[in-house]
Amino acid sequence: MENRPLSPRAVILLSGGLDSTTVLAIASAQGYDCYCLSFRYGQKQAIELQRAARIAEHFNARRHLILQLDLGLIGGSALTDNIAVPKDRDLERCTDIPVTYVPARNTIMLAHALAWAEVIGAAEIFIGVNAVDYSGYPDCRPEFLEAFTVMANLGTKAGSTAGDHFQIRAPLMTMSKAEIIRTGLSLGVDYSMTHSCYDPDADAACGRCDACLLRLRGFAEVGITDPAPYRGTI
Amino acid sequence: MENRPLSPRAVILLSGGLDSTTVLAIASAQGYDCYCLSFRYGQKQAIELQRAARIAEHFNARRHLILQLDLGLIGGSALTDNIAVPKDRDLERCTDIPVTYVPARNTIMLAHALAWAEVIGAAEIFIGVNAVDYSGYPDCRPEFLEAFTVMANLGTKAGSTAGDHFQIRAPLMTMSKAEIIRTGLSLGVDYSMTHSCYDPDADAACGRCDACLLRLRGFAEVGITDPAPYRGTI
Repeated sequence: MENRPLSPRAVILLSGGLDSTTVLAIASAQGYDCYCLSFRYGQKQAIELQRAARIAEHFNARRHLILQLDLGLIGGSALTDNIAVPKDRDLERCTDIPVTYVPARNTIMLAHALAWAEVIGAAEIFIGVNAVDYSGYPDCRPEFLEAFTVMANLGTKAGSTAGDHFQIRAPLMTMSKAEIIRTGLSLGVDYSMTHSCYDPDADAACGRCDACLLRLRGFAEVGITDPAPYRGTI
Repeated sequence: MENRPLSPRAVILLSGGLDSTTVLAIASAQGYDCYCLSFRYGQKQAIELQRAARIAEHFNARRHLILQLDLGLIGGSALTDNIAVPKDRDLERCTDIPVTYVPARNTIMLAHALAWAEVIGAAEIFIGVNAVDYSGYPDCRPEFLEAFTVMANLGTKAGSTAGDHFQIRAPLMTMSKAEIIRTGLSLGVDYSMTHSCYDPDADAACGRCDACLLRLRGFAEVGITDPAPYRGTI
């Protein structure tokens, strides 16, 4: 038997989108034993869960856990409630937080990641948030993640018995979408496996929601065609 | 029609136990329009949810929402996993965090409360944590709640657009169990409606887990008999 040191474990929040898939590729390349966590939360884009499962397998994740969240009962978002997903927004000019914002979503997802991390003995949680090419969600900002980390270390057994035990890793935080894509490509990500659209029809992306617009702009900047399927003319 | 000012709304985390029921009585007496939130998380003491429903009705809560959490899939606790609930612990001498600790439970529950509060326009979340007669859970301490509040105000739309919008209220934090019971009695709480035991048999409490021991000690100190049903001789 080999006498290799055990790889450190990490929980990776994996939606099956472009960003979180790139994060999984980064964590995997950094030698982490990856425990991928996805959520079925009543999202219109539930197709992303099938993609997440394939992606986790592709990157030899140790486990892929899909948890059910009752966010639909809470409502309040275009992603979980009967509210239309906005299309064709001018992302340079829109400074408001859009209706696709899901109240406290990253707090809820990170809280579950924290619980799982504590149970499996992982100290690091990877999340694909980004504060450059993003929709203005407050729970994608570095100050939010810093505050979450402080809270996580006070509110858990592992964190309160060993100071600064838990760390949130957000390797995409300061990257543009084009930089994220280039990073992923260099790590062997096949972006045809990923799904980003908030309002898909079967597995075809709309090409017009914020997530599609940011993604398409990123691929255009890199100078390659997005391999994801889109419906109609975009 | 009356022209009364609208009562402020508050989310009350309601387990159906002694502490959270007292908190609901306090919030109700303070004039809040109470939105009670409970969780079905694979807990052995699921009987508490029936009690919570009755208690919410008794206090004329505006709504009572029971959300499903997948904590059983995460495991790691005697309350959600195949681990025995410890009995007859000497709570004066035990300084370790017991196996009934559920990793990140209060973080997860408060995160959902935060989401709901944002959707219904409530700024206050009430929780029945207590740092006097408690089991040593890290997520019951004031420093945890303070850190959660900072995080909540950074990670939400309402919090990030109006500073210090969300507040966590923990009115029992510095009370002994006896003080909690006296407070509840003065506000009309019928403690026979509440359930505290971690390891009940039907609706009969064991009388020996931490929750039962703390509760029984509280009633003894007040000088009255706990009206909850216990099994066998305690």
